[in-house]
Amino acid sequence: MKAVRLHEYGQHPVVEEVAEPRITSPYDVIVRIGGAGLCRTDLHIMEGHFRAQSGITLPYILGHENAGRVSAVGSAVDIVAVGDTVIVHPQISCGFCRSCRAGNDMHCIQAAFPGMDTDGGMAELLKTSARAVVRLNPTLAPEDVAALADAGITAYHAVKKAIPQLYPGTRAVVIGAGGLGHIGIQCLKALTPAEIIVVDRSPEALALCKSWGAHHTVLADGQQIATVKEMTNGRGAEVILDFVGENSSVTDGIAMLQRAGTYYMIGYGGQLLVPTGLLISTEISFVGNLVGSYNELVELMTLTEQGKVTLHTTFYPLDAASDAIHDLETGKLRGRGILIP
Amino acid sequence: MKAVRLHEYGQHPVVEEVAEPRITSPYDVIVRIGGAGLCRTDLHIMEGHFRAQSGITLPYILGHENAGRVSAVGSAVDIVAVGDTVIVHPQISCGFCRSCRAGNDMHCIQAAFPGMDTDGGMAELLKTSARAVVRLNPTLAPEDVAALADAGITAYHAVKKAIPQLYPGTRAVVIGAGGLGHIGIQCLKALTPAEIIVVDRSPEALALCKSWGAHHTVLADGQQIATVKEMTNGRGAEVILDFVGENSSVTDGIAMLQRAGTYYMIGYGGQLLVPTGLLISTEISFVGNLVGSYNELVELMTLTEQGKVTLHTTFYPLDAASDAIHDLETGKLRGRGILIP
Amino acid sequence: MKAVRLHEYGQHPVVEEVAEPRITSPYDVIVRIGGAGLCRTDLHIMEGHFRAQSGITLPYILGHENAGRVSAVGSAVDIVAVGDTVIVHPQISCGFCRSCRAGNDMHCIQAAFPGMDTDGGMAELLKTSARAVVRLNPTLAPEDVAALADAGITAYHAVKKAIPQLYPGTRAVVIGAGGLGHIGIQCLKALTPAEIIVVDRSPEALALCKSWGAHHTVLADGQQIATVKEMTNGRGAEVILDFVGENSSVTDGIAMLQRAGTYYMIGYGGQLLVPTGLLISTEISFVGNLVGSYNELVELMTLTEQGKVTLHTTFYPLDAASDAIHDLETGKLRGRGILIP
Amino acid sequence: MKAVRLHEYGQHPVVEEVAEPRITSPYDVIVRIGGAGLCRTDLHIMEGHFRAQSGITLPYILGHENAGRVSAVGSAVDIVAVGDTVIVHPQISCGFCRSCRAGNDMHCIQAAFPGMDTDGGMAELLKTSARAVVRLNPTLAPEDVAALADAGITAYHAVKKAIPQLYPGTRAVVIGAGGLGHIGIQCLKALTPAEIIVVDRSPEALALCKSWGAHHTVLADGQQIATVKEMTNGRGAEVILDFVGENSSVTDGIAMLQRAGTYYMIGYGGQLLVPTGLLISTEISFVGNLVGSYNELVELMTLTEQGKVTLHTTFYPLDAASDAIHDLETGKLRGRGILIP
Repeated sequence: MKAVRLHEYGQHPVVEEVAEPRITSPYDVIVRIGGAGLCRTDLHIMEGHFRAQSGITLPYILGHENAGRVSAVGSAVDIVAVGDTVIVHPQISCGFCRSCRAGNDMHCIQAAFPGMDTDGGMAELLKTSARAVVRLNPTLAPEDVAALADAGITAYHAVKKAIPQLYPGTRAVVIGAGGLGHIGIQCLKALTPAEIIVVDRSPEALALCKSWGAHHTVLADGQQIATVKEMTNGRGAEVILDFVGENSSVTDGIAMLQRAGTYYMIGYGGQLLVPTGLLISTEISFVGNLVGSYNELVELMTLTEQGKVTLHTTFYPLDAASDAIHDLETGKLRGRGILIP
Repeated sequence: MKAVRLHEYGQHPVVEEVAEPRITSPYDVIVRIGGAGLCRTDLHIMEGHFRAQSGITLPYILGHENAGRVSAVGSAVDIVAVGDTVIVHPQISCGFCRSCRAGNDMHCIQAAFPGMDTDGGMAELLKTSARAVVRLNPTLAPEDVAALADAGITAYHAVKKAIPQLYPGTRAVVIGAGGLGHIGIQCLKALTPAEIIVVDRSPEALALCKSWGAHHTVLADGQQIATVKEMTNGRGAEVILDFVGENSSVTDGIAMLQRAGTYYMIGYGGQLLVPTGLLISTEISFVGNLVGSYNELVELMTLTEQGKVTLHTTFYPLDAASDAIHDLETGKLRGRGILIP
Repeated sequence: MKAVRLHEYGQHPVVEEVAEPRITSPYDVIVRIGGAGLCRTDLHIMEGHFRAQSGITLPYILGHENAGRVSAVGSAVDIVAVGDTVIVHPQISCGFCRSCRAGNDMHCIQAAFPGMDTDGGMAELLKTSARAVVRLNPTLAPEDVAALADAGITAYHAVKKAIPQLYPGTRAVVIGAGGLGHIGIQCLKALTPAEIIVVDRSPEALALCKSWGAHHTVLADGQQIATVKEMTNGRGAEVILDFVGENSSVTDGIAMLQRAGTYYMIGYGGQLLVPTGLLISTEISFVGNLVGSYNELVELMTLTEQGKVTLHTTFYPLDAASDAIHDLETGKLRGRGILIP
Repeated sequence: MKAVRLHEYGQHPVVEEVAEPRITSPYDVIVRIGGAGLCRTDLHIMEGHFRAQSGITLPYILGHENAGRVSAVGSAVDIVAVGDTVIVHPQISCGFCRSCRAGNDMHCIQAAFPGMDTDGGMAELLKTSARAVVRLNPTLAPEDVAALADAGITAYHAVKKAIPQLYPGTRAVVIGAGGLGHIGIQCLKALTPAEIIVVDRSPEALALCKSWGAHHTVLADGQQIATVKEMTNGRGAEVILDFVGENSSVTDGIAMLQRAGTYYMIGYGGQLLVPTGLLISTEISFVGNLVGSYNELVELMTLTEQGKVTLHTTFYPLDAASDAIHDLETGKLRGRGILIP
């Protein structure tokens, strides 16, 4: 089959012929890919950012945002059948450790993450597990939802944690109106009555936010802290959702946070630096967010079926993977890029 | 009356005669001080650390850990009567704002904090409010519990937040076996089934920890991270309670924290510095802690009555305030210092 | 002033001249009534249902759903000023007991409930407390929101408790599409992504529900249990909100409840009868709901300002109180009846 | 092998030779039984109480409280190995449904419950699943802990839910000092700082409670409601844990419950009957409890290893199953009865 394989860090991956995956254990599931999302994390992978952490030997197939149609199942699989359309949770979890059994799939102690530490879904076929496939409602096409598999539940997961703090009259600041941020805005709208304030450097990105549910948009032109403070009675917002997590987004975000407020970090790349005295005198919290659980992916698919979350996507044939990567690297890619085998 | 007043930042306060406070509004309460705790925060106040934040004009009376006997009450006060022994919550809250009405007293938007931004309790008499006084069980003497008013509920408050994460089989690491830490250990023991690991630089401080309920003590001799990891199956602890919050305590503590774990910051003075990528890939959280609520002070008094929390104190006459401060500055003060008018 | 006073149980109250209330303590507030809601609980009061519980001596003024304009304040009041428009939380709470300090106003140990155990608001003036008045946004008229003071927050309070159980894909069954139910539907819509199923005996009442946000309506024609089961994959709903609480609503509701589901009781008058074996084998819960907190009333006012909750009301002059009561007794009153002095 | 099989409802089961279970699917585990607990639920099973619900055809092997040593495993099992000692969670869950994936094992939609709806553990061998076995610390003997598999986690599960309500100064009333109650008392002691009040009809049962951690015992001699009220300032307890659930225990328990309190039902057999008006005016809740999760069984094993929970047991050879049943029926069995093959 055709697949997009990374042969060397610092280089683009290559589209080439590889052997098809085979069922080897009772809970294996093989999915014929309908769409595989391209994500900023793929750029970090290509740069070698996760080299030590993933421990994988090159070459291997990229792609951790996958959806398609079941093409083969192991002997013990009964939750999906050949022919079902599915979205694939990015992590294969064991189902036996405490985390799996408590609904914290991402902290499974025996997990695999295709596209990161084993072959991923930028290919005709992907091998995953019965624990990772969510059957799609027939109204949803795999290529339209693929990017929700990782970007989507990451945004959803953070918003869901924030629900108890977002009662009527509160404000959530979304930092970053890009691929994750625009899903975050839609999830906030669907799950909470909070006023949504979006901060971004790009007027074009902000222009789209109101249609997704934002109440206010703030251009990050140097005055953003003052503007957000003004919108929040000088006190700051109860919740910050930081989809950027690098450069000045974090210092900006902290300055926009209210006493006793919570800062949800979703983007990454920079540093969180805060005096312990400030942490204490204002009693603020910082919360990391790592993808989301299988159940959360099911919930997000429900919102998608209900039309409450929609993705902005650009399709590329699998053969044009390198073009898609180039467009992402150069800021030309609008919405989420999806490779279609 | 006699009082300990700060006249100049960078100097010790002075014991001198001042006018007695008077009842001026319906919910005022005047307390004849039985004991006033001396706290590391007093040193920070003297150094001018809170000068801008408190906005107070010198001279004023220090002392935010107070207990004594009610000597006068305003016309509308009915929850205490003259003669009752009381411990004084360090903050006077309004009772009308959202925070007060939600049990988050410390985030009252109209608060006063005697000893910080108004006259405190290192004196014969203290003026506070009916909303800040907790009637003591007759078995408790004011001078024995005074230091629980601030140090105590700060430790209690952080431990209480951690309860849901500390089920049987989990581990809590207490960083710092000093004045707050030793209360934290006793609260952990009283409220949770967690295994308690205490880390400190002082073998003397650690020696006392087992009698308070610690299961393991770890000398911070450079190997403390490795030792704690070893005690926690290489994974780190579910909860860190950092009563130091400066120097290397924070970097140590982060290295001892398990995936999906929570870091409670109680001490202050240093910096929290963490790559956003780590925050996300391990999904850890950092939680600030600011004193505690009035209800929490009541709960802590219950634990004290039940003998589950006891304070280690050294008494000084009010006139010897400067000696007590000197002993605290030079590390000679054992336990919490209490000034007795 | 004119007031609606109950002179004898079993009789309608009488509109008559009474002395005006006066400020007697520092936190008193006197409100010139703009609208006073008439509630089914008023009928229960007239019938003597609360005679023992309230302990009040007749005659006294009815009316526990009040809004208007501040006409006088006690010496210590600073959260409202004369001339402010306000809605009045139905309970005067003390602000000092554990419940008040934990945000559970309704469990205040020293509460008064005007219209129930002291003079209420079906009059030109009402005496309440600074702890019970919520300043209105100028866009809201007192007579339009008065009924939210009790009926409204009761519905809101129950829905708010149910939020953690109502994630995308879940279903909430609202039993009773009347005065409280229609607010409950709007609150569900504003606060949760749940599918809303409304059950009622009246096709007319059901006809209005879709405009308030209901996804499905079910006529209680004897087939309601089967119909709801069918709508919920044969498993029942995760949450039942029972705004009726009498006759067969409870047995119906239990039959519509999913394993591990929660039944929120808001209406009253009947019995809850359930075998302990069923409670256990299905692990269901039954939760009582009593009005709501001051903070919740503030939140509900925010939803109202935002246009997410609107009340259906019929106005009557205060002099026509008996007509309004008659219309409520005979089922002729549409929406909530509001008396205008 | 030898097994205790029920041939007819209304009769004692029979000890007889049956075929040994065999591994038939990849996650099967066969356990050589070290001890099988006898439970009041077994009497209900024999009476036919669960006939319709379980849908099983007689004869079949009883026994749902099992522990022993792994004697065979399916091809995909890696969490236990042959020879490991294990306690067996009473339910075989699927690991794929929403409930399993959210930590609510007991609400698995494809569960089996050996001893109830398939062959149980009163036999030499039991067939269960890798998802149901908890490896024991070598310090624990299977026959000593077997009864914790069902009775134990049922008590633990209910206590764990009550933790947030049981802060210092609160009271928990335990109704029933028998097999479940005595574990409940130990769990309350291990997990909460609450004052524990135990109510029972038997002075002998009460006599043992103080050694398990009860602070007060109350003989159910007709004055129990008044006595408990007196012990709780006339207000009742914050939490009731009802391990009886029949006869007058429920009406007694409701009368002992404080406003805003929660009633945990663990025992069964009777009726819960409460006016909806009472549910609302006091805002109390009733919560069913069904066994507990696998993770909770692991936690309970930790408490047992730590010596915080110990079981009182009487051993019988498997051949004497009928004697054990007779002793349970006639009230002669002290502690939990354990059959040893």
